Amino acid sequence: MMNEGIHSLILKKYNVTSGDVVSIKLNDGRELSGILMPKHEFSAEDTIIIKLKNGYNIGISVRKIEKIEVLQKSSTHTKKLVSGVKPKAELPKVAILAVGGTILSRVDYTTGAVRSAVTADELLDILPEVIDIANIETKVIMNKYSEHLTCKDWERIAKEVYNTITRPDIDGVVLLHGTDTLGYTAAALSFAIRDLPKPVILVGSQRSSDRPSSDAATNLIAAIYAAGNLPYAHVMVAMHASTSDTKIALYIGTRVRKNHSSRRDAFKSIDIEPVGYINVLGEISHEPVWHEYRCRDHKRTPRLLNKFSDRAALLKFYPGMPKCLIDILIQDKYDAIILEGTGLGHIAEHLFDVIKAAIRDGIRVYMTTQCIWGRTNLNVYDTGRILLSLGVVPLENMISETALVKAMWALGNFAKDNLDNIMLTNYEYEFTYHSPPW
Amino acid sequence: MMNEGIHSLILKKYNVTSGDVVSIKLNDGRELSGILMPKHEFSAEDTIIIKLKNGYNIGISVRKIEKIEVLQKSSTHTKKLVSGVKPKAELPKVAILAVGGTILSRVDYTTGAVRSAVTADELLDILPEVIDIANIETKVIMNKYSEHLTCKDWERIAKEVYNTITRPDIDGVVLLHGTDTLGYTAAALSFAIRDLPKPVILVGSQRSSDRPSSDAATNLIAAIYAAGNLPYAHVMVAMHASTSDTKIALYIGTRVRKNHSSRRDAFKSIDIEPVGYINVLGEISHEPVWHEYRCRDHKRTPRLLNKFSDRAALLKFYPGMPKCLIDILIQDKYDAIILEGTGLGHIAEHLFDVIKAAIRDGIRVYMTTQCIWGRTNLNVYDTGRILLSLGVVPLENMISETALVKAMWALGNFAKDNLDNIMLTNYEYEFTYHSPPW
Repeated sequence: MMNEGIHSLILKKYNVTSGDVVSIKLNDGRELSGILMPKHEFSAEDTIIIKLKNGYNIGISVRKIEKIEVLQKSSTHTKKLVSGVKPKAELPKVAILAVGGTILSRVDYTTGAVRSAVTADELLDILPEVIDIANIETKVIMNKYSEHLTCKDWERIAKEVYNTITRPDIDGVVLLHGTDTLGYTAAALSFAIRDLPKPVILVGSQRSSDRPSSDAATNLIAAIYAAGNLPYAHVMVAMHASTSDTKIALYIGTRVRKNHSSRRDAFKSIDIEPVGYINVLGEISHEPVWHEYRCRDHKRTPRLLNKFSDRAALLKFYPGMPKCLIDILIQDKYDAIILEGTGLGHIAEHLFDVIKAAIRDGIRVYMTTQCIWGRTNLNVYDTGRILLSLGVVPLENMISETALVKAMWALGNFAKDNLDNIMLTNYEYEFTYHSPPW
Repeated sequence: MMNEGIHSLILKKYNVTSGDVVSIKLNDGRELSGILMPKHEFSAEDTIIIKLKNGYNIGISVRKIEKIEVLQKSSTHTKKLVSGVKPKAELPKVAILAVGGTILSRVDYTTGAVRSAVTADELLDILPEVIDIANIETKVIMNKYSEHLTCKDWERIAKEVYNTITRPDIDGVVLLHGTDTLGYTAAALSFAIRDLPKPVILVGSQRSSDRPSSDAATNLIAAIYAAGNLPYAHVMVAMHASTSDTKIALYIGTRVRKNHSSRRDAFKSIDIEPVGYINVLGEISHEPVWHEYRCRDHKRTPRLLNKFSDRAALLKFYPGMPKCLIDILIQDKYDAIILEGTGLGHIAEHLFDVIKAAIRDGIRVYMTTQCIWGRTNLNVYDTGRILLSLGVVPLENMISETALVKAMWALGNFAKDNLDNIMLTNYEYEFTYHSPPW
């Protein structure tokens, strides 16, 4: 690149290095001070970034810089880096596996956009306090935005998690993952590893780690703590319980949904409370909620059932929904359709014939509700009873995203004859039978 | 029917009629007392129903009846019926138009199922207190479960509402509607009648009116009160604000969603507070929330734009979503596709080509978020920027159901060239720009 040298040139000129506390005089008379941040792959060559005292990062064009003064050299104030840290015998060991997403990304200060560019190791370098929570090892499985993940990726992730969780030295696994399809992957892993002996915590962030409002650090600290210390041998998601930075919730993997596009507390579990909370303000602590759960037991032997079929489809019903959307799935020989009906699980009568045709052709048709919360019930209204008579199978209060993932999993690992039976078996809290407290 | 006479025979034998307070001795020794309910179309011939003092209705097989005793004749305790009530000059006039749904239905005590069988007039007969809130007229437009409603039904409903609302003697309209697609119809009416001069209140119930836990009465009372008295000239939905029976919320018609399959407070408005609340405990009262709204003005002349096209489709994205679902819409010459993406509005890269093909073929592709809450933003991540470059148009924080309805409306009433422009114009709060208070 043409500007390759500018960034390092300016640092050399003033004898500053990443991590130094600096004071920068701008040619408009302003003066800014803060920690000089390391350059990363996507930051512009003619921009340097400093972290201000209030936590904000700002990019400064080198053309605007009149003078840089070093207030404190990095060596005198930065903490030790994780790499090379000696394991502490009293701490649990947690493996961090990276899949991708915002938690692994930084802002490109030229465009303001976010790019996935930081490795798990780098993330720990800027979050050294985790070395007091657990002994850490990290591995990058892939670096994908989660909206691009496929069945095949779930198979690979499940395999890696399985291989890691079965190691005697590992106490729990943390998976760094984009938030867009975090709920889908959490459901996939919930089904793919049976008889889980240790916690598997998926964690993401809604704001990248170099943004002042980032939730990356607190979510990750809570996830590592949960994976290493808590008794819940479940696949769970660790994300902000509210917009404050003090409390992280652990959501069961089969009932968790991204319910807001940008808020830090976007994730909620549906029709059930979180498994527990982790308070990260001051001394880290655990607030249990569930009293019944599969308890951590390192002697339990998990089984890996990690095949996922792409022969299941999800269709959200809407007024005027055309038959062609179901016809094409019949024609393409799908094995299962999850219908996201209205209310208790209804669709319009003009679709009854094509549903009948699908079922006659061997497609299993399941009903969930687009309400998100609440239970399907096809026994209350005529519409429901007709759908039952056509052979549509209601899925209680399984959320539709989980229903899709479960159908893909069931078709991948078991005979199709057994599909209804597997869909209606409660493996991992995909059905809940008590009302939530609200 | 074979048993035609049994029901009336038993009533004749003991000289009882509907509305009488009776005491029934059963042949198992038990004794029950309550008000004898009228027989309705779907109740079993050999069953009589009484309303107990605690509000519960129970069905009693005539074979179990040993003796019926009349404690009080109906004429001495029932209130006056609405039909034939003289209009009170000081009260507003509200037209109740019936479309269908649970609010118009009763439980079939033979099967426990709910059937739509009561007319609006009958409903008022069992809710005589409304005659103190407004002068009422009722009309049954149709009697359909809302999941079966189509674009054509919306056109008809909009026409009826328009014809009614433009009458000088009418102060507001209440629409009795099933809850399943209540939000979709509310959006359709919001767009179909421009420059609305008076309130149009859609109301449903989650439990039928003869169930003790029914929300029908309180919702209807609040809806009639709002239509007749409140200043908001908007299409709104009146439903329980919480599970208690004291507070009914008014939700703006373009942002309201059924978020629970069965709870009485299933409806919520997304990314905005309710327009106001109505307290129905004791003296009915109004608690305003919004301070800016289109004010009631009987001189404002509304315009009817009630055509809806079926050439718009809604697709919820999911991991592994097949191209064929979009291909078939290209083949069938759809005009618009609403994609419910993940997070800020993303879909997987394997769909980029088919989206490109759709746009090349003249289909306008719009992006909403399956998160439900929050705003789309295609400028933050690479995936979003690629979708923008392909020509996908993000719809801010319009909810996907409203986006579909709006596209159907825009295609029905305007030139297709103008579709993007109309989709991005804020007509009825389908875009909101301030954060909700939570």
